[in-house]
Amino acid sequence: MRDGIPEHGRIPRYYAVKVQVLDLIAELGEGAALPTERELCDRFDVSRATVRQAVSELVLEGRLRRRQGSGTFVAGPKLVQPLALVSYTEGLRQQGIEPGRTLITLEHRPADPGLAAELRIEPGDPVVHIERVLRADAERVGLESTYLAAARFPTLLEVFDPAGSLYACLRDQLGVVFAGAEERVETVLATPREALLIGTNPALPMLLMHRVSWGPDGVPFERVRSLFRGDRLSFTTRLTPTS
Amino acid sequence: MRDGIPEHGRIPRYYAVKVQVLDLIAELGEGAALPTERELCDRFDVSRATVRQAVSELVLEGRLRRRQGSGTFVAGPKLVQPLALVSYTEGLRQQGIEPGRTLITLEHRPADPGLAAELRIEPGDPVVHIERVLRADAERVGLESTYLAAARFPTLLEVFDPAGSLYACLRDQLGVVFAGAEERVETVLATPREALLIGTNPALPMLLMHRVSWGPDGVPFERVRSLFRGDRLSFTTRLTPTS
Repeated sequence: MRDGIPEHGRIPRYYAVKVQVLDLIAELGEGAALPTERELCDRFDVSRATVRQAVSELVLEGRLRRRQGSGTFVAGPKLVQPLALVSYTEGLRQQGIEPGRTLITLEHRPADPGLAAELRIEPGDPVVHIERVLRADAERVGLESTYLAAARFPTLLEVFDPAGSLYACLRDQLGVVFAGAEERVETVLATPREALLIGTNPALPMLLMHRVSWGPDGVPFERVRSLFRGDRLSFTTRLTPTS
Repeated sequence: MRDGIPEHGRIPRYYAVKVQVLDLIAELGEGAALPTERELCDRFDVSRATVRQAVSELVLEGRLRRRQGSGTFVAGPKLVQPLALVSYTEGLRQQGIEPGRTLITLEHRPADPGLAAELRIEPGDPVVHIERVLRADAERVGLESTYLAAARFPTLLEVFDPAGSLYACLRDQLGVVFAGAEERVETVLATPREALLIGTNPALPMLLMHRVSWGPDGVPFERVRSLFRGDRLSFTTRLTPTS
């Protein structure tokens, strides 16, 4: 608790409750139901508004989960997605979790100037845009948009199964070799559309990953924008002196 | 704007305003003052509450910045911190920004069981804890806590300058070789104390990086917890097939 206390010594009441709820979470263990709001008010002798603020921060941080109509429960640990040249599929399978995808958009669209520069094509050239909701077991955890130069992958839409791994398809069916990628990670808020598709509260901080990947020729072949629930996922990376 | 619209077609009013303010931001350019709330209400013909929600999301996302007493301004791009075996200092200097640090805590404390396991020492063994506010040019952007096994670095406190780079000190004065590290990145909310030290709003999503680094012997020598303002910083990494 000490680590959360401002130097001037005044502890916000909701934060004191939050620390006590964290202790309760540790006691209860994953999957257990949290006592009701009313019970927490009685237990900590605070108002409903105070309990609500403490609980909703813990929900935003992924320590608690709300299930519609059935209450609030102790959440499991966050999923870990490696920042490495592995696909979403491989990353989750390494943790014993079954990945799933729901196709939202599959279209050809003209590249805007920014995308064209990144893929080294001309503005207006057609790109394939694949947008999918990402699931971990049954749960929706993210939304991914991939953009590929259409001229480079003319047979993609004939061989690609939107429910399967795009990377496996590129590698195994189209002979693509992943030679490198650049990734950028930041935290953002979801747009209303994204929140609806992923099934989250728009106030929930999300992790956004931008990736540009290239082949042995050094020419970028895809741009990816992956948005993940910040309460359900973290990224890991292993560093070596040459990386 | 289309990308933000829910499939069911209803656009939240604040979101429509947010998209228009984004266009305005692009027109105005970095550093320019945003029109007042009242002017924005008139321009978009919406209530003050609606303008406020749009503007405060753009502030949380780092597109706008509030300056106490002087208004709201168009923010510059986020700083980029490489996820690589470089220090905060090197990462910023590569972008032409002068890093700074303010010492908050410098203490010996006994290792709790989790920290002891990570550093492969016994619970209760002394660790050096260095906590510093991180600055980029004059601005506070993060808070970093480093824990090192005291027995391994008996002369650290004699040679370490709390205003300088810890990594440079470890490498150049104590002969430490960085052979590898594991990092985990997630998004969290700041505690009240952290928000106060960094000078942020506690609702601001933060990027939290955990790092454990080891030497050529494979034994971890430090654990680091770095908390960065999510509106001011992003992480990048370059991937290769072997990483």
